[in-house]
Amino acid sequence: MTTLIKNATIIPMTERDLALRGDILIDNGIIKAVGSVKDKADEIIDASRMIAIPSFVDGHTHLAMTLMRNYKDTSENLQDWLSEIFPIEDKLNDEDIYQASRLGALELIDSGCTVFADMYFNAWSTIRAVKEAGMRAVIGQSFMNDKDDADFRIRELAPRIQEAIGNSDMIRLDAAVHAVYTSTPDCYERATEWAKELGARMHTHLSETRKEVDDCIKQYGKTPVELLESIGVFSIPCYAAHGVHINEEEMDILKEHNVSVVHNPSSNMKLASGIAPVKRYREKGINVALGTDGDSSNNNLSMMKEMNIAALLQTVANMTPSAARPYDILEMATKCGASALGLEDRIGTIEEGKEADITLINTADVNISPVNDPFSAIVFSADRKNIDTVFCRGRKLKEHGMLLTLDKDEVIRKTEERWEDILRR
Amino acid sequence: MTTLIKNATIIPMTERDLALRGDILIDNGIIKAVGSVKDKADEIIDASRMIAIPSFVDGHTHLAMTLMRNYKDTSENLQDWLSEIFPIEDKLNDEDIYQASRLGALELIDSGCTVFADMYFNAWSTIRAVKEAGMRAVIGQSFMNDKDDADFRIRELAPRIQEAIGNSDMIRLDAAVHAVYTSTPDCYERATEWAKELGARMHTHLSETRKEVDDCIKQYGKTPVELLESIGVFSIPCYAAHGVHINEEEMDILKEHNVSVVHNPSSNMKLASGIAPVKRYREKGINVALGTDGDSSNNNLSMMKEMNIAALLQTVANMTPSAARPYDILEMATKCGASALGLEDRIGTIEEGKEADITLINTADVNISPVNDPFSAIVFSADRKNIDTVFCRGRKLKEHGMLLTLDKDEVIRKTEERWEDILRR
Repeated sequence: MTTLIKNATIIPMTERDLALRGDILIDNGIIKAVGSVKDKADEIIDASRMIAIPSFVDGHTHLAMTLMRNYKDTSENLQDWLSEIFPIEDKLNDEDIYQASRLGALELIDSGCTVFADMYFNAWSTIRAVKEAGMRAVIGQSFMNDKDDADFRIRELAPRIQEAIGNSDMIRLDAAVHAVYTSTPDCYERATEWAKELGARMHTHLSETRKEVDDCIKQYGKTPVELLESIGVFSIPCYAAHGVHINEEEMDILKEHNVSVVHNPSSNMKLASGIAPVKRYREKGINVALGTDGDSSNNNLSMMKEMNIAALLQTVANMTPSAARPYDILEMATKCGASALGLEDRIGTIEEGKEADITLINTADVNISPVNDPFSAIVFSADRKNIDTVFCRGRKLKEHGMLLTLDKDEVIRKTEERWEDILRR
Repeated sequence: MTTLIKNATIIPMTERDLALRGDILIDNGIIKAVGSVKDKADEIIDASRMIAIPSFVDGHTHLAMTLMRNYKDTSENLQDWLSEIFPIEDKLNDEDIYQASRLGALELIDSGCTVFADMYFNAWSTIRAVKEAGMRAVIGQSFMNDKDDADFRIRELAPRIQEAIGNSDMIRLDAAVHAVYTSTPDCYERATEWAKELGARMHTHLSETRKEVDDCIKQYGKTPVELLESIGVFSIPCYAAHGVHINEEEMDILKEHNVSVVHNPSSNMKLASGIAPVKRYREKGINVALGTDGDSSNNNLSMMKEMNIAALLQTVANMTPSAARPYDILEMATKCGASALGLEDRIGTIEEGKEADITLINTADVNISPVNDPFSAIVFSADRKNIDTVFCRGRKLKEHGMLLTLDKDEVIRKTEERWEDILRR
């Protein structure tokens, strides 16, 4: 099967500010040519009003939290909010997580995202949903509490997750330790050891709130970054969500160990966690990805909204637009996300040999015309309604605005039924 | 003609946090009943998956700047950006402004807005577009420079604008003086005198940047707020856009004169102008509306996006979510906007006797289900794709996601043709 995308404005993300007019040939899920393509193809798409970009990478989310969207939004801060959320999570079963994950997968696809890094429990249910939705995922084997609990999870839960993944090369397993305020150092150590054996990465929450940092210093005499470094967590590739309260010395530690930071601006703003020093991270050469953090703290899984908010927030926080140019933000949402998850050889750019995760943005709409600058148009003007077509390894997950892989109405109905049932339990 | 909206979640904005399940009866453009309605109607709308809210009020924009959307987005700040924009504006003619305004009107309607306060030149062209689009507008007779120029505009331009408005009671004329850094005190005085005679309000930019305030103090020995008060501008009802750099004493002046502030968070962030003290304004009882500021500095005319960003920004700026609860933000975007423009007796709430400017938000979509909290859902989850139906005085401007009053494709095409021509001039 070959697909030829004709006459698009292509933003390959291979070179700063590069946008070219041309074609993209996809052959059996792989990008075969970018530029002026004369080949025939099984399917030809007229993309003369489209901008083609690499599909988005959501570097940090909790997919099944679609259930708790807009729930208890009166919380004062992260700790207050978690005290509302944890009792709900205690009630969730496999079917709840499966249905909620289906909804989350559709929401991600709807705004052009084909891969996400997830941190949640009963991950086999999320994997089932991801496979049905036809997208990619980096699934976290979640860890919390202490070493004994980590041993239990490695023994009892990890095999179930690995079985659910099966021989899929679209889904990978990483270690996902919740945070220093919920997980002991020996839990982190055990998870790191397990991940190292598996060749997996470490996904964790890091320095999200001032309180987390202060409490960590009080308990361990070290900041969360210093603590994780001291117990060897950074000896494996790591992507850390939030990184809001991190100083220059800690940045040097992150840089030294090639730790990626996943920026979640909506969540950090909404939960009054603070403003991450994204400009400084990038100046220091630290890889920064972008994430949604889930529907309960955001309350969307839209990488488009996240880009817009990230650009605006960094601009006003640093009082200069050069803190976060549209190209920088788009890079975070695509290429840097792929790097954080170790997928940079497969996705994140539009170039020959890469797998075809490509999103077509329709510019023939009242919110984005005239385009003028395609980078600005994507980051400041576009929204999910402009997302016309979403390819994941050459397969269309959305076409002309319609979600193709799951029945949207059924997914919404079933998720709402589960949620009503959960509230009654 | 009667329309009955059945089984909606109604947010009337008449009482804090009130959401009720019920019906709305519209009779000849007027809301006849809200609650459980047994009457028959010419048209019945099943709104069982809809949230009904008052249509949005865009308290400050420059509608025809759709042309310059995403243009010269590399500017470092407001002054730098204006130096790129002013030479373009010198080239614009009536037809440009008419076509661009048609596009702007459609963009506003698309995300649920039925009235906007505009500040731009050749306003007769914008009025022509507004009438075709079927929406409301508060049009500014723009003023800039000095008293002589003000006299000229009052003599030569205002009659053309008044003629364009004709006997329409959907469009009103206010005075719109650009700002203290472009307009002299005697220009403000003359405009105020003219507005007073006409029974019009004053629309102006106020304390948008630190530089504006510092320069004003240097030139006049007064802040912009003090200057405008001293020359009597606040003797007529006034709505001031931005209000980013305003201290406690100046707030007392605004409060004393019932000046409304129109908050434009996207623009203030994008142009690195700063963060307006919205929480303090509201604590002091100052009326705060919400505005888009136009496509060139935003780069959307979406009150939905603006609400989301306003809520997130105030939360992180004050490090507490109680700084801007979803109800507060929705109030700014509806009722407070209506008050700022002196339209509070006609629109801004859903209650008997008011004109039927009502927007139906579809909650059967992957980005907003489950709703849980309708206020949070609107402010944090909804986007323009959820805007199903938009009524303006009982007339549908959008229905089931389709824009009804103008041909979207033609409007986009013609605006882009004008823009290409402008760049060649």
